[in-house]
Amino acid sequence: MASKLLTEKIAEDIIQLIRNNKMKPGDKLANEYELAKNLNAGRGSIREAIKLLVSRNILLVRQGAGTFVSREQGIPIDPLGFTFIDNKIKLASDLLEIRLILEPEIAAMAATYATKTECENILNQCDIVEKLIEEKQNHDKADADFHKSIAIASGNLVTANLIPIIHTSVSINIDLTKNELTDQTCRYHRIIAESISKGDVQEARYAMIMHINFNREALAERYKIDKRKH
Amino acid sequence: MASKLLTEKIAEDIIQLIRNNKMKPGDKLANEYELAKNLNAGRGSIREAIKLLVSRNILLVRQGAGTFVSREQGIPIDPLGFTFIDNKIKLASDLLEIRLILEPEIAAMAATYATKTECENILNQCDIVEKLIEEKQNHDKADADFHKSIAIASGNLVTANLIPIIHTSVSINIDLTKNELTDQTCRYHRIIAESISKGDVQEARYAMIMHINFNREALAERYKIDKRKH
Repeated sequence: MASKLLTEKIAEDIIQLIRNNKMKPGDKLANEYELAKNLNAGRGSIREAIKLLVSRNILLVRQGAGTFVSREQGIPIDPLGFTFIDNKIKLASDLLEIRLILEPEIAAMAATYATKTECENILNQCDIVEKLIEEKQNHDKADADFHKSIAIASGNLVTANLIPIIHTSVSINIDLTKNELTDQTCRYHRIIAESISKGDVQEARYAMIMHINFNREALAERYKIDKRKH
Repeated sequence: MASKLLTEKIAEDIIQLIRNNKMKPGDKLANEYELAKNLNAGRGSIREAIKLLVSRNILLVRQGAGTFVSREQGIPIDPLGFTFIDNKIKLASDLLEIRLILEPEIAAMAATYATKTECENILNQCDIVEKLIEEKQNHDKADADFHKSIAIASGNLVTANLIPIIHTSVSINIDLTKNELTDQTCRYHRIIAESISKGDVQEARYAMIMHINFNREALAERYKIDKRKH
């Protein structure tokens, strides 16, 4: 128990070190020997603390190359605890419901607060998704990145992390509904991107509602989802 | 690498076992020997897989007592990756902003879909918070449980997990704004609980907006938060 607490304390020290040195994902950490010296700890404890931080997706060990700041930024596998939700269709539907509440407002915030560079990123992501759809390639990842670029532009720190997590749902959606919805995806992604760039708050909000609700309706119709419990 | 993949495969098998047997948090897992036999794996691999599942908050090992299904249900520490967000005041403000988008709609869903038992739970949690406030005791946990009971009543599986996670913000809020806001907390919690019980969707939504926005305003005023970036 005492050693577990020590490990956690040293892990906190390493996190503080990463912050103080403003280290970025991919940056290499000092080696075990230097860390032990700098943090005034034994090498065994340093090793345990590194293991803990690897399990929390904060560090990444590459055999022979060293220890690096993880690109996952501490966001764990299955952050919202979906492992034990068996009904994947209801999960997909519930995720779309939450997206339908959150993302129109996030688009509205982006239309209010986005910088010029952030608008360019959104328009650029919009082009990438469109090109992949035209070429009939998988666009799950690019689609999630489009929505993430809007979350970042909203200026809300929580959404920038939350939206990519919620978009674990996208692959389920696209999987379930195939390519029927790609036409509306291209149309509404474009309206969303352009209205955010123009600072048109209401247009951005409405376009996002249309976009997500088309998906939600398609899923609900196909699986005859009825929410009434009684 | 091969052994890492094996560990993950066995971890998946253990998760499947928990699901198939419909095991609940706190239930005891079979011992190492039986698991090795049932899953057709070596005891060393079983041990590694259990370690992985402990790090993912899916299992819990109590020395001398055995291995149990964790009450955390696989929801990890810091699920949204806030470790690296230094500005805790902006984080608190951004969390309230997200709550202000999500929770009025969740209250509206609860007013639409809540069962009788779920309404009783919400009213019960409302009483508990009120009593703690009257006795000037800490009500962070009870407050989070009140909002969680509403999320559960909404019938949306995602919110039932998401709201408790977002309520890591509550302790920051209450800490920052002291007890100035407890009067409005009691007043609006009560209106929210009663309107959900009566199935009054709009009243539930409006009361939740009032409740969260009082907190957001207090925080914004005290710290002169201005979202405009340019």
